[in-house]
Amino acid sequence: MTTTVPIEGRILKENDRLAADLRARFESAGLLCLNIISSPGSGKTTLLERTLRGLPDGTRAAVITGDIQTDNDARRIARAGYPVKQITTGGTCHLDASMLTRALEGWDLDRLDLLFVENVGNLVCPTSFDLGEHKKIVLLSVTEGDDKPEKYPGIYRRAGLALITKSDLLPHVDFNVARAREHAQHIHPGLRHIVISCRTGDGLSEWQQWLAVRRAAVAVQPAGASE
Amino acid sequence: MTTTVPIEGRILKENDRLAADLRARFESAGLLCLNIISSPGSGKTTLLERTLRGLPDGTRAAVITGDIQTDNDARRIARAGYPVKQITTGGTCHLDASMLTRALEGWDLDRLDLLFVENVGNLVCPTSFDLGEHKKIVLLSVTEGDDKPEKYPGIYRRAGLALITKSDLLPHVDFNVARAREHAQHIHPGLRHIVISCRTGDGLSEWQQWLAVRRAAVAVQPAGASE
Repeated sequence: MTTTVPIEGRILKENDRLAADLRARFESAGLLCLNIISSPGSGKTTLLERTLRGLPDGTRAAVITGDIQTDNDARRIARAGYPVKQITTGGTCHLDASMLTRALEGWDLDRLDLLFVENVGNLVCPTSFDLGEHKKIVLLSVTEGDDKPEKYPGIYRRAGLALITKSDLLPHVDFNVARAREHAQHIHPGLRHIVISCRTGDGLSEWQQWLAVRRAAVAVQPAGASE
Repeated sequence: MTTTVPIEGRILKENDRLAADLRARFESAGLLCLNIISSPGSGKTTLLERTLRGLPDGTRAAVITGDIQTDNDARRIARAGYPVKQITTGGTCHLDASMLTRALEGWDLDRLDLLFVENVGNLVCPTSFDLGEHKKIVLLSVTEGDDKPEKYPGIYRRAGLALITKSDLLPHVDFNVARAREHAQHIHPGLRHIVISCRTGDGLSEWQQWLAVRRAAVAVQPAGASE
């Protein structure tokens, strides 16, 4: 908010300090942390359900999922058989590093390879809060319109990967994948896009391959993997 | 944000003061003001385009549309032939009463019957900022999932009408209209729902009828129309 810039500045500075601590812990554990951000209903939870089920055997993955209310998402994700914790923010529009720090209490990060953080459904506010993650991943479903990268530039500027979800609905909506990519490239040149459908499986192997490459980079070079 | 409650409290109090001024101006002008809130891509702009084109001849309507970046929506809406102004927030995640006050400068409210305010695409933050409107209207598209009322109770608690949009996509998604209504009723007993599709026209006459009734109430009883 314009009128709170100095206060927001202080909060973000404190958040950055906690995020730096988290980042150091993730690096030292060789743990890849991904911060998943999108509007409500773009398919974050469904993506995680499908992704967890498709991970190579023996992958030590875990999920922290954020919502304003309900633990529906945690219950859905738990069925995939991996550890999951729900952060219920009770009104707050984003996760911050202190919430994530508290949620991680009791988990031994050295025994994890991969941590997904499913942020609160909101394409604006979560963007500003560093959680110490290696990458932010933005999801945009094809039902939301191909103009969204241009209208929400903050997340596209900061994202390390963009997923276009629900591609199975393309025949039924007016969404031009090339135009969405072009808008995003204008804001963030070189940003990688993967077009996926959790319903048909379209693009999921490309996504799993991206994950495998990122995991390998973090595991092999723990000191320099946050690029 | 938990850590900023006292400051947020002050900002909201100042906002409430400005919103009360706006409300008094809307009442005195006999002008129905509606604050349209949803996630990005739920169909706010398309609804306004269709609604403006379907208004009775002679309706004096106008639109204020909010976005973080771009004036795409204002340009789309302008084609319907009604006055429109864009508020570009430049990063702020919601509209507030001071932004709306400034945007209304130069418009003679006594010469308007109907003002739509299209908020920034965000199901969380706009909820807290009173704009002096008669009603908040929440849109939920069927592609977002029927669990959203439960997960975003703030807006459902405060909304005066809920629109379920993109009903033409119902055959292609896993969305149960009855379940969405039930979740919403649990939070806000008696909340009216209208299911619409701007593509097929489904539900639009019911929505126009709702508008006509609300407009008549404001025009006839300007002093008591904010119920």
